[in-house]
Amino acid sequence: MADRCAHRLAPLSLGNISGNVVRCRYHGLAFDGDTGCCVHNPHGPALRALAVRTYPVIERHSLIWIWMGTPQSADTDTIPELSFIDDCPAHAFSKGYIPTAADHRLLEDNILDLSHGDYLHPETLGGGAFTRATLAVKEQADTLLVRWEVKNEKAIPIWRPEMPDPGSMTDMTAEILWHPSGVMTLYGDATPVGYPPERGVRTWNAHIMTPQSRYSTHYLYCNARDYRTEDAHYNAAISAGLAKAFAEEDKPMIEAQQSRIGHNDLFDCQPTLLTIDNASIRARRIYRRLVEAEQAATT
Amino acid sequence: MADRCAHRLAPLSLGNISGNVVRCRYHGLAFDGDTGCCVHNPHGPALRALAVRTYPVIERHSLIWIWMGTPQSADTDTIPELSFIDDCPAHAFSKGYIPTAADHRLLEDNILDLSHGDYLHPETLGGGAFTRATLAVKEQADTLLVRWEVKNEKAIPIWRPEMPDPGSMTDMTAEILWHPSGVMTLYGDATPVGYPPERGVRTWNAHIMTPQSRYSTHYLYCNARDYRTEDAHYNAAISAGLAKAFAEEDKPMIEAQQSRIGHNDLFDCQPTLLTIDNASIRARRIYRRLVEAEQAATT
Amino acid sequence: MADRCAHRLAPLSLGNISGNVVRCRYHGLAFDGDTGCCVHNPHGPALRALAVRTYPVIERHSLIWIWMGTPQSADTDTIPELSFIDDCPAHAFSKGYIPTAADHRLLEDNILDLSHGDYLHPETLGGGAFTRATLAVKEQADTLLVRWEVKNEKAIPIWRPEMPDPGSMTDMTAEILWHPSGVMTLYGDATPVGYPPERGVRTWNAHIMTPQSRYSTHYLYCNARDYRTEDAHYNAAISAGLAKAFAEEDKPMIEAQQSRIGHNDLFDCQPTLLTIDNASIRARRIYRRLVEAEQAATT
Repeated sequence: MADRCAHRLAPLSLGNISGNVVRCRYHGLAFDGDTGCCVHNPHGPALRALAVRTYPVIERHSLIWIWMGTPQSADTDTIPELSFIDDCPAHAFSKGYIPTAADHRLLEDNILDLSHGDYLHPETLGGGAFTRATLAVKEQADTLLVRWEVKNEKAIPIWRPEMPDPGSMTDMTAEILWHPSGVMTLYGDATPVGYPPERGVRTWNAHIMTPQSRYSTHYLYCNARDYRTEDAHYNAAISAGLAKAFAEEDKPMIEAQQSRIGHNDLFDCQPTLLTIDNASIRARRIYRRLVEAEQAATT
Repeated sequence: MADRCAHRLAPLSLGNISGNVVRCRYHGLAFDGDTGCCVHNPHGPALRALAVRTYPVIERHSLIWIWMGTPQSADTDTIPELSFIDDCPAHAFSKGYIPTAADHRLLEDNILDLSHGDYLHPETLGGGAFTRATLAVKEQADTLLVRWEVKNEKAIPIWRPEMPDPGSMTDMTAEILWHPSGVMTLYGDATPVGYPPERGVRTWNAHIMTPQSRYSTHYLYCNARDYRTEDAHYNAAISAGLAKAFAEEDKPMIEAQQSRIGHNDLFDCQPTLLTIDNASIRARRIYRRLVEAEQAATT
Repeated sequence: MADRCAHRLAPLSLGNISGNVVRCRYHGLAFDGDTGCCVHNPHGPALRALAVRTYPVIERHSLIWIWMGTPQSADTDTIPELSFIDDCPAHAFSKGYIPTAADHRLLEDNILDLSHGDYLHPETLGGGAFTRATLAVKEQADTLLVRWEVKNEKAIPIWRPEMPDPGSMTDMTAEILWHPSGVMTLYGDATPVGYPPERGVRTWNAHIMTPQSRYSTHYLYCNARDYRTEDAHYNAAISAGLAKAFAEEDKPMIEAQQSRIGHNDLFDCQPTLLTIDNASIRARRIYRRLVEAEQAATT
């Protein structure tokens, strides 16, 4: 439900909820949680005009999904597949929220281009392997599938202790599925060369970039893994490590990047783009295409 | 006196006052407190051009009244009648100042529509009586008289201990006189049904909304009463209760309302107005009329 | 070097320096410190387009001087003569940095018009002597030489203890050399009347106003003297006194002046200018002339 009363725009979030009815704390008008229609106006008739816009929402994968478009077109099939969140053992899971003062697209660029790990996260994800990876980007309808393939390299630092020995050569893959809802999944694995896949490690991640304003984003992430799944101590260490990497490495870099870009479009600042920016350029094109289609439909 | 030196705009409020002369602390120019003329320029002649604009001011009812218009048209008769401030015993009086990040008109709306007390102040002013009140709004020249009449209801919570018993039925009235200077007086009383007026309680209030900028307001209020007038302990409790209600209930609601409205006009946000908004709509019309008259007079 | 990577505008100041090479911490591109050319792109060829703008810089007089114009026109002869900084004994020197929320020109005005000392710094520089000084302003190419001459007055308060007795009559001079780089030197002396110059005191100062933005300035100052040059205790007291005067007297006044001017030009606010503003008006004219010449040259 839009957070402004139909009467005088007081925020309904300061009001009360009783059953399915939201009551404004300023003048007592009450609205139906589904339709947004006024169900009680203490000062007169519950006029038709006294309606608050509501949005279809659904809870799935421990997240609340809101449909900002016309309610008729709401389609739960567009919710990305995140069942790893539901299936993950408690001690193999970590999550976090990082409000970031940057355009959501700069945050998406960060995940679309994993090569940054070699430079920005040298002690956890770096080592240079991703800079030498084979990169493939595929458009599938309005999503992007980005696949990084690494052959015969040492595992990334956080995974070295899981290998037969820390210096073992491994094959690694990372697959990112980007949705224009700002939801991205990232699957990754590492298998020591010459061992069966079971000897390797796997991780499933979601990176969710929800625009708060043009230049600020609610960044939510979570991480599941298939090793040391019962180890609460290790899980706490991994959680803290991820939180630190996002908050102290990614966030400051991306916010500083935004401050250099200012209130301009990235492309107006004449960046010199490289092959590693392939996915990021396509994502921006898809956004533009969808915005234009929506604008054409409404005019 | 305007707070900027005629020389180079340094703020005179950082300077010194000696008798009726204000001296700038930056370069020592001195100005007459009444006329604003330069009475001493240490660096040369006290040129005519070295004059600072002054405004007629007068102290009355413990407040300083400033006339922002042309000095010739200054008229002390336009100062609202607030002699209750002068006459009130020390322990029957409380006052406060609440800087508020909102258009002064949103603060005025709050007092013009007392029905909000039932929802925003349920433990002190609520109980539902004002929602069921008879409301009359009268325009008198450029002021508004708003009268709320409540028959045969329990007193508002803060007054219940003053009644024959807390559940006594009472008649209550509230009269608000709104001036387009943003000064509002509010008289209120409650009398238990079947008792003489002397058995009731009365209160006199001023709510003064002085615009600081378009979206911020100096909100000053005071309250006098005719019961427990010698009770310092009760007075302190009432003072604290009022401060809490304004600071923790009104202010956050009105500032949040402003944040929803943003830098738009309330009416451009398509509010659905009700009968309780009658006075608030008229006040805005009077403001518009006065602004247009002033603009017509100056062009 | 401009603090934005040629790739995607990440700030290079978050990166690393190794020898003469600056490496971006986001995606690892490396740039030559002199030419700004990309010397290593881990993700592909070091394209010519991957160049970051560099600026000629030189270290002199313990300061870093940057040339913001075309590199070819960089000219070290335009660096003001500040060798007193290099030659000054450790205990005869103090310096400070005061970030100020004001147009750099308001800070320059402050030094160009020393008469303000009588009013803003009455306990250290005041006494009225400078208000009675003879003032001469000379334009020399694009610089301004401002000379204040004071005859037969008590020394300024901080110098009274250095005179034969605190009330001794003295002759004082102050010479300011203003450069349109925002660098100003201030030489001052006081000699007791009837004594040889050696019995007097001398001071050399730099006031450097480097614009950070239109309405904020990096203000750097330093002070050298030729008396009590071995007295660490006195030096600490003088340092603290200067820091206090700038931070608690000049800065608040100038920032308040800026807040009165707002985002307007000072001259649009109709100041009434006096003879003491002579140098300040000329400095603004020189700035305008130089800006117009630069614009004419580039179009």
